[in-house]
Amino acid sequence: MLNVALFGAGRIGKVHAASVAKNSDAQLLAVVDVHEPSARALAEQYGARVSSQEAVFSDASIDAILICSATNTHADLIEAGARSGKVIFCEKPIDLSLERVKSCLAVVKEHKAKLFVGFNRRFDKNFRALKNALTNGEIGKAELLQISSRDPGPPPLDYIKVSGGLFRDMMIHDLDMACWLMGETPVAVSASASSVVDKKIGEAGDVDTAIVTLEFASGALAVITNSRRASYGYDQRIEVHGEKGMLQAENVLESTLIKSTGDGVVSQKPMYFFLERYEGAYASELESFIQLANGKAEAEVSGEDGERALALADAALRALESGQKQRL
Amino acid sequence: MLNVALFGAGRIGKVHAASVAKNSDAQLLAVVDVHEPSARALAEQYGARVSSQEAVFSDASIDAILICSATNTHADLIEAGARSGKVIFCEKPIDLSLERVKSCLAVVKEHKAKLFVGFNRRFDKNFRALKNALTNGEIGKAELLQISSRDPGPPPLDYIKVSGGLFRDMMIHDLDMACWLMGETPVAVSASASSVVDKKIGEAGDVDTAIVTLEFASGALAVITNSRRASYGYDQRIEVHGEKGMLQAENVLESTLIKSTGDGVVSQKPMYFFLERYEGAYASELESFIQLANGKAEAEVSGEDGERALALADAALRALESGQKQRL
Amino acid sequence: MLNVALFGAGRIGKVHAASVAKNSDAQLLAVVDVHEPSARALAEQYGARVSSQEAVFSDASIDAILICSATNTHADLIEAGARSGKVIFCEKPIDLSLERVKSCLAVVKEHKAKLFVGFNRRFDKNFRALKNALTNGEIGKAELLQISSRDPGPPPLDYIKVSGGLFRDMMIHDLDMACWLMGETPVAVSASASSVVDKKIGEAGDVDTAIVTLEFASGALAVITNSRRASYGYDQRIEVHGEKGMLQAENVLESTLIKSTGDGVVSQKPMYFFLERYEGAYASELESFIQLANGKAEAEVSGEDGERALALADAALRALESGQKQRL
Amino acid sequence: MLNVALFGAGRIGKVHAASVAKNSDAQLLAVVDVHEPSARALAEQYGARVSSQEAVFSDASIDAILICSATNTHADLIEAGARSGKVIFCEKPIDLSLERVKSCLAVVKEHKAKLFVGFNRRFDKNFRALKNALTNGEIGKAELLQISSRDPGPPPLDYIKVSGGLFRDMMIHDLDMACWLMGETPVAVSASASSVVDKKIGEAGDVDTAIVTLEFASGALAVITNSRRASYGYDQRIEVHGEKGMLQAENVLESTLIKSTGDGVVSQKPMYFFLERYEGAYASELESFIQLANGKAEAEVSGEDGERALALADAALRALESGQKQRL
Repeated sequence: MLNVALFGAGRIGKVHAASVAKNSDAQLLAVVDVHEPSARALAEQYGARVSSQEAVFSDASIDAILICSATNTHADLIEAGARSGKVIFCEKPIDLSLERVKSCLAVVKEHKAKLFVGFNRRFDKNFRALKNALTNGEIGKAELLQISSRDPGPPPLDYIKVSGGLFRDMMIHDLDMACWLMGETPVAVSASASSVVDKKIGEAGDVDTAIVTLEFASGALAVITNSRRASYGYDQRIEVHGEKGMLQAENVLESTLIKSTGDGVVSQKPMYFFLERYEGAYASELESFIQLANGKAEAEVSGEDGERALALADAALRALESGQKQRL
Repeated sequence: MLNVALFGAGRIGKVHAASVAKNSDAQLLAVVDVHEPSARALAEQYGARVSSQEAVFSDASIDAILICSATNTHADLIEAGARSGKVIFCEKPIDLSLERVKSCLAVVKEHKAKLFVGFNRRFDKNFRALKNALTNGEIGKAELLQISSRDPGPPPLDYIKVSGGLFRDMMIHDLDMACWLMGETPVAVSASASSVVDKKIGEAGDVDTAIVTLEFASGALAVITNSRRASYGYDQRIEVHGEKGMLQAENVLESTLIKSTGDGVVSQKPMYFFLERYEGAYASELESFIQLANGKAEAEVSGEDGERALALADAALRALESGQKQRL
Repeated sequence: MLNVALFGAGRIGKVHAASVAKNSDAQLLAVVDVHEPSARALAEQYGARVSSQEAVFSDASIDAILICSATNTHADLIEAGARSGKVIFCEKPIDLSLERVKSCLAVVKEHKAKLFVGFNRRFDKNFRALKNALTNGEIGKAELLQISSRDPGPPPLDYIKVSGGLFRDMMIHDLDMACWLMGETPVAVSASASSVVDKKIGEAGDVDTAIVTLEFASGALAVITNSRRASYGYDQRIEVHGEKGMLQAENVLESTLIKSTGDGVVSQKPMYFFLERYEGAYASELESFIQLANGKAEAEVSGEDGERALALADAALRALESGQKQRL
Repeated sequence: MLNVALFGAGRIGKVHAASVAKNSDAQLLAVVDVHEPSARALAEQYGARVSSQEAVFSDASIDAILICSATNTHADLIEAGARSGKVIFCEKPIDLSLERVKSCLAVVKEHKAKLFVGFNRRFDKNFRALKNALTNGEIGKAELLQISSRDPGPPPLDYIKVSGGLFRDMMIHDLDMACWLMGETPVAVSASASSVVDKKIGEAGDVDTAIVTLEFASGALAVITNSRRASYGYDQRIEVHGEKGMLQAENVLESTLIKSTGDGVVSQKPMYFFLERYEGAYASELESFIQLANGKAEAEVSGEDGERALALADAALRALESGQKQRL
């Protein structure tokens, strides 16, 4: 039985707490949150105790930690977890600074700690089916990857200002997805972007619509398109064109209902946002983490994966600012 | 907190036990099964005790029973439950004999017992979306209903011999669905059927492929097609044609992956069978039952619904045997 | 070069005249219509002459006739064509009376005339692809056929009164399609119908919504659903369920445009009505007829096919009136 | 009646000759081809005469010319046509050299000649439906355009060597499409490309797989992906993401047949190549040209449109070579 402590009792912390509860190999022992009532409510729901950072890291009965707190606490918590011998699950990103990520991963390495970074989309059953088909050679060599990723609407400007920007906050998922699917790290990055959705996002120093192109040593190319707005719901599609064919993972719709009237043939919208669309992915992700913690599997997403995605986001930003393709 | 006892620790009993465990308003107290090791395994998994019929019905602390045992035990358990004041969930059918169903429901009525019959498909989110659109008048008056229902493969001949036949065992779901969707009870039934899938099914006195047509007093018509075989998986589709348009609930596919090659554009198969396709429906169904048991809602499926579906199956059988449309 | 005379310069006559013009193996010589200006306009467009029945049948330079005039003229024109040695294309039906069809076909047989009946849907590329896949054994033995056929709206009541009724006027296409696809003639017919679309249709002695079930000697079953109304356009779909899978020919949409907004994911409607949907089929049909007339091919649709479809429509009507399955 | 002369009796010349024949407002008078037997065969089919450049340009009875000959003859023929007062249809490109295009268009302008450039895809009914929906404001302001354009297989190396390269030969269609749909000319162009399909294409100095990103002054972005290979057929899709939704024009499939078996749910492939996919577009394009020539409409595609697309292709090539975004 794996004993787990949770940092952060917010939206995503609750998702992972529920996954732990459903898993017969793990149990939630402690919840830590700067907002004590949130910690208490979640702890009570699952029969856990409210705790503190110090108590968790000094408690030898706790095997694993789930870091779902604010981004600026991630790297410190990872290091503390590594030093106290915990198996660590950390929501993306490790940090918004590539330097800080590197120093943090050095500590992880030094203590030979097990670290799993929460790129949840790798666990979506549709994308996984695409990855499996690709790996099985069903379309031969991959030549051209297209990732479309659009949020239903922009986050508050206050969030955007501390988010690290669209490339580090939103596209980082797609950059990881591109590397994971292609089984390669890009050798060049180009970027175009604008704030066509909301000028205030531009005034805040960020963009809301972006196209990033990746080149791989194999000659394969990839393009990621992002938008902070999709009036029809959360748009999450992947397409790989290859030697012998094409693979597409389409949106997951709210239901299979189709209505035909004089206005046309109407299918349902994509599921609203990440909590709905990736509900199953979050559960699979945590199962994978619990297997890692119980020594039954390797980390499916490593700290280095988190570092690579951030490095690509930084390169995209440099490409955007300079108008020059960035060679890596 | 609702205290629940479960009769039958088989495939479907396990599904409902898991739903009870996930519901914070209910808990599983007792499991009864003629095969004691099955009862024990399931009881241990959820911290319940192994029990007996007598003990359950004489235990005042048990509020509700889930009847998931063999069909020929259903009516007796319902009656015992009604007499001892339990709220009753019973998997379909109540019984294969319409006379027995009537006598059983008389006991239920006499004791003013709450009875919920497990027509799980009404709780499928896709069919429910269709029902809601229909009720909301999105296509006006319903005129023509088509239900396609095909199992991935025939059950063993031994099962077929005791199943009551395709109409009572398989189509009974579709007959209930037709009445529920149309909000009417048919006034006439016709039937055509054959054993084109497997002659041995015909030799056993049953059919494996069937078309049943229903007529409603409103002038609306319905047709149900059933097959014991669908090589591409569990085929469960509904289409309603109405005054202002058409509603279709399509199959739920294994994933959204599409592969395009020289052979065509290949989507995934429908989910394999009822446990996969109706996983969410089973959970919603039990939530609805727990709400009934906790006095928060009426029975969404009543004993009379169970009786009506069986009466229609019997009428379809008479129509098949006589070649004469049966007026009800 | 095949010399062709056309009877009937209406909507469908124009379609066939255009097909003749495009075909380098045939030319339109004469047009006959009781409404002389219509005949004149069409004749002028294609460089043909206005003519009369007598002139056509006594003109040895005319090889073939296309009968697109009113239904009650078909049988007489066929007989006159047969007697004067013309190759004959006749729009469905040969006649609304089965007796008259039989006497007409006796004349055709006596003169060994070549007769091609215009069941245009057999030439639709989508249905033909389905037929080919079925014939190639791609789903093994056919077990269950579903034909959905719905017009965008009911014809005028005046037409309905002389149409022969829904079974002989509209479903006759689907009855022919069922026989052609299955490669068998049904052994039993059942029917349910109502006038749920428009009571006046019922008062005129006809129905507007119908379900007809066919049984074949092989054990295969078929169901045809018809409606005189489809608010979303002309609904023409076929589905065959077989031993190893299912074949579906879906509607042809106005374009491939899909619009996703907050209201859903909207595809285009099916093409409006038969002239749009079957434009290609009409052209292919006439190519096939010209090949017949030029001795390069057999009649793809024979007079006997026309007779069979009408006999099935009559049987469906008897089944509807009696409530008794009609064995053939 | 418009009298038309055709230069070039090859594949595309035949397509346009057939369109002229079908149009009641135009007739083909003369055919010119360096390969005299080709000219003769086509002329005979449509009752035209074989002619020469000199004869066509000095023949006052010829109103319009269709230039379907080799690319290196286009600009000279356009100039000759302009000088002799013909209305001119020219297959793309006007020339592979931007300088030559400019000097040619200067001659056109000087003689106030009417010139129509054959960007046939603008006339595809699916893309036109998308353009109309966009123009009607159905998704508000356009923000993100994606054009996927892939040929079924690479052309012969000999062709590639004289083609001007993928950007000028193949992507030029997509560059025109992007400008036409967005109603803007890009202000910046980036490019990534490789020869991952066939190294020999790279050795010949060209690429076979490419991603080009366009930026517009409005803040909108566009990405074009091209591949010389699509094992599943001709892949021609467009997607526009906007303020209020998304528009997608999907591939046109060979038929609507869907086959479901144990291997999945198989739809048909996209139509094989441009002659099949754009058959209707070619016909509409020539109708539009004939309307221009008859003074009933303006040129839907102008010489300047041809120049702009080539300038963008050249800019994409410079971006690829330099790794630097090209500002225009």
